[in-house]
Amino acid sequence: MIIDVKKAAEILRENDDFLILSHANPDGDTLGCAYGLCGILQKMGKRARAVCADAVSPRMEFLRDTVVQQNFEPKTIVSVDVADRKLLGDLDAQYGDKIMLAIDHHESRQLFAQYTLVEQNAAAACELIYKIAVELDAPVDGDIASCLYTGIATDTGCFKYSNTTPETHTIAAKLMEYDFDVSGINYKLFDMKSKGRLELEQAILQNMEFFCDDRIAVVWLTSELMERFEGRVDSEDFNGLASMPRQIEGVQLGATVKQKGPTTFKVSVRTAEPINAGSVCALFGGGGHARAAGCSIEGSIEFVRAKLLPVFEKALKANE
Amino acid sequence: MIIDVKKAAEILRENDDFLILSHANPDGDTLGCAYGLCGILQKMGKRARAVCADAVSPRMEFLRDTVVQQNFEPKTIVSVDVADRKLLGDLDAQYGDKIMLAIDHHESRQLFAQYTLVEQNAAAACELIYKIAVELDAPVDGDIASCLYTGIATDTGCFKYSNTTPETHTIAAKLMEYDFDVSGINYKLFDMKSKGRLELEQAILQNMEFFCDDRIAVVWLTSELMERFEGRVDSEDFNGLASMPRQIEGVQLGATVKQKGPTTFKVSVRTAEPINAGSVCALFGGGGHARAAGCSIEGSIEFVRAKLLPVFEKALKANE
Repeated sequence: MIIDVKKAAEILRENDDFLILSHANPDGDTLGCAYGLCGILQKMGKRARAVCADAVSPRMEFLRDTVVQQNFEPKTIVSVDVADRKLLGDLDAQYGDKIMLAIDHHESRQLFAQYTLVEQNAAAACELIYKIAVELDAPVDGDIASCLYTGIATDTGCFKYSNTTPETHTIAAKLMEYDFDVSGINYKLFDMKSKGRLELEQAILQNMEFFCDDRIAVVWLTSELMERFEGRVDSEDFNGLASMPRQIEGVQLGATVKQKGPTTFKVSVRTAEPINAGSVCALFGGGGHARAAGCSIEGSIEFVRAKLLPVFEKALKANE
Repeated sequence: MIIDVKKAAEILRENDDFLILSHANPDGDTLGCAYGLCGILQKMGKRARAVCADAVSPRMEFLRDTVVQQNFEPKTIVSVDVADRKLLGDLDAQYGDKIMLAIDHHESRQLFAQYTLVEQNAAAACELIYKIAVELDAPVDGDIASCLYTGIATDTGCFKYSNTTPETHTIAAKLMEYDFDVSGINYKLFDMKSKGRLELEQAILQNMEFFCDDRIAVVWLTSELMERFEGRVDSEDFNGLASMPRQIEGVQLGATVKQKGPTTFKVSVRTAEPINAGSVCALFGGGGHARAAGCSIEGSIEFVRAKLLPVFEKALKANE
């Protein structure tokens, strides 16, 4: 059943012994939701703990430290920022069919929970947790605010992406009234890079290919390149690379081609208006949004290149 | 005379034929103020135009396009985001002693105008222009909002820096209610890099020196390096380089040493808490803030290196 913020608050108020599930390969939004909600429930005198199928990256460990780890037999299962049961990873088998409340902001068609609160216009699921806290009149503090801020900052690229709404800023303003290290969080999320990541970025820039008067840029993340960085970068260091080609002035279509197997390539496309990245990727059976989309192609590197480039050039020229 | 927002609004309401002065080497805040205020005054039926001693970078040209260029003999001179008359550049000689109203957010001790509105807690001078617009009940539109948003985003690093306050977000929320291309502006300000800038960043990373178990990082912007990039980068491409060393995970003190002449070096220091960058630079006759400061040193590169490194190491070890 699809529910609103008020009903979600009611469910949380009337239940206890909460297990809060994040999605696998966790980001700041799913973790911010989980630890923020956990803190809210604990401060309301309830038992709550947050779990995730995958490890929390060192950059995000401060979120876990905002709550007390409690041991109890869970009765109420809640998922946060989880669009699909599959995204629960190893937690799906045990909990996937027992979720009472799902809180999410994706275009979620798989309604796996008993109750689902979904607002697609929310830039981050943490915006919904904040609204629930207001509805519950919950005792928010700096720890809880730091979790919810982290989720919002993560999903909006620090208020930079087009999903940022006036309400996103309004909620950030309210959260910043509480005492927490905002600029420290922003440093960890957006400025801090490992030496390995910087070397990876350099290697990518050196190997970037340009076409059509530098209006198309393509990055090849081959197995060979990724093996070269094994041990020097962690999986987190591969995040956000897809936006690199489009950062270069004049590039209207940027693509990142990542080798997933000997003959399997995952393509991420980013475009400037009016080129539609989703339409480009749909030609290869993929999809996504107007400015960001993806697809998979099977074949040799040469085959993939021969397939992609004419399509990219055509998309560019159709909009001249 | 130091005045408040209400009085500033009154001065603007009661006068006409405005010339609005930005500081030289203009950034998004001084230009956002100038063109935003110009738009507000023009929409109030007054004559206004904005001037700057230096050229507006291509990245900021959209601000200039938000207003109509008007020709008239100026009667009321206003400066925006100008902390010191010297910062007016070539405009100082003609207008420096004729400024009726100065609107600023710096710790401004030089009170060069007849009336000065200064709020040091404002993250950007554009916050003050917004407050004046509210006080004037001015007809804000998307063009004006885009100017004021640009100033706020510029001076806060898109809401990332520690000068960002709850009020900064509240004003951003209000501005975003108007129709303008927020994500396009953010792309131009924060994501878009010229090919030359990317190559410069690569050269800097390759030449970065690390000390004390990678906790100190130093970049040398020698004349030789800068000459190598002549023609490939513009002066704007040298902005923000001082923050590069500190972006590397684990670096607690990052310094950028820029050669200004054969034996003149400008040093920018960025630190993690609790190392005080201001105290470090004060030892060389410079100064600044706790996290960001600067100083100048005369001598050969070898001399500068021999002077700086022991001080950096001492500052690091004093806080272990």
